[in-house]
Amino acid sequence: MNTIEVCFTPALYQHILTEPPFSVAVVDILRATTSICSAFQNQVKEIIPVATTEEAMEYKTQGSLIAAERNGIKLDFADFGNSPDNFMTEQVRGRSIVYSTTNGTQTIKMVNNGSPVVIASFINLSAAAYFLASQNQNAVILCAGWKQKFNLEDSLFAGALTQKLLDLGMEMNCDAAQAALDLWNSARENPIAYIQKAMHRERLKKLNLDSILEYCFTPDQTDVVPVFDGFRILNKTNHE
Amino acid sequence: MNTIEVCFTPALYQHILTEPPFSVAVVDILRATTSICSAFQNQVKEIIPVATTEEAMEYKTQGSLIAAERNGIKLDFADFGNSPDNFMTEQVRGRSIVYSTTNGTQTIKMVNNGSPVVIASFINLSAAAYFLASQNQNAVILCAGWKQKFNLEDSLFAGALTQKLLDLGMEMNCDAAQAALDLWNSARENPIAYIQKAMHRERLKKLNLDSILEYCFTPDQTDVVPVFDGFRILNKTNHE
Repeated sequence: MNTIEVCFTPALYQHILTEPPFSVAVVDILRATTSICSAFQNQVKEIIPVATTEEAMEYKTQGSLIAAERNGIKLDFADFGNSPDNFMTEQVRGRSIVYSTTNGTQTIKMVNNGSPVVIASFINLSAAAYFLASQNQNAVILCAGWKQKFNLEDSLFAGALTQKLLDLGMEMNCDAAQAALDLWNSARENPIAYIQKAMHRERLKKLNLDSILEYCFTPDQTDVVPVFDGFRILNKTNHE
Repeated sequence: MNTIEVCFTPALYQHILTEPPFSVAVVDILRATTSICSAFQNQVKEIIPVATTEEAMEYKTQGSLIAAERNGIKLDFADFGNSPDNFMTEQVRGRSIVYSTTNGTQTIKMVNNGSPVVIASFINLSAAAYFLASQNQNAVILCAGWKQKFNLEDSLFAGALTQKLLDLGMEMNCDAAQAALDLWNSARENPIAYIQKAMHRERLKKLNLDSILEYCFTPDQTDVVPVFDGFRILNKTNHE
């Protein structure tokens, strides 16, 4: 049976149990992976994640559309920041976007083992789960966290995705998956209320989440399957 | 108000938010910190944690009593292994024990910032909490985990200790403390049943836990406060 491992922060990725080959789901609910799914829902052509501000600025001089933030704040030279509502417009249709964020895009960039890396969020939860299960190999759910630390929203999603993968016949191979699942089970009746427990903390205050919170925690709003190939992210939705 | 931060594995310790000075509680429920508390309950004189097998062997040649295991198995040259029942005998009274384990003692050794480091477990839960609160500074709960990974039993205890510290007027400063608390609240009615969910996994099968599980998860069996001073662990129980 294929296994599910949850990695709560990028700092723990080097210590995972699962041996290659495996598939990866990268998770940054607030907000990179939600925003990427939103962009593909709005028919962006491709997204190129870059780790540093310098790389993003270089693409800017080449005429690309740039989405970039640090610590929740849009960078001056960028066309827009990291909020999903920036990606929900006609402006993105058919375009290439270069994207750089505090946690999310750096986490996507660090995973490059030749296996599929799917961009996962509540808005494409079932689509991401079906994609992972259809790879017929072990899966690692990698939470972007916050500056290498555990965060609630990504861990909660890891639990929701674990539940979907269990339903699709996979099994957990680590305590972190069990803990994520238990957190999800205690929060699933009202995930927004649950996440609001974390919202008085400084990092989330800065994000101006009021307008997008419901969007970010509502499952299955789209069937996009954004997959990172080591350079760019493309939509691999299977409409057969 | 003094804060509580939870660090789920030693690999995350370098990323903590809390700035010095702070107190630390080191947690390795199965089994190092439970065993250390048990030894002090049985009036051991001192415990000297060492990180490597080589150091432990060197102390052996000097005539010390040695407790040492790797991956749950007692090492050949050691007088005993890592199970709390080894430390519950007359044999330890008044003695010095040199102690080396897979996760626990190495985690104790890595914390050396000049502030108090208390050895915490369910069996001395309240005593450890009172000690931390009485330091009147921020506290970090450092879980030994399993080979740098998250584990359920240490995280569950982190939640129980967080609850005690909240009751004593401290406040959480991170999502990991919130998650640990939520796990504890979902498990507190029957922590042993909860932890048995993890017990079919390989790492716990090796530990032969049947005889000690209830002991390891029963709160407040002793008021010992083992404190590490950078070299040795001594009991700082205040009997005023």
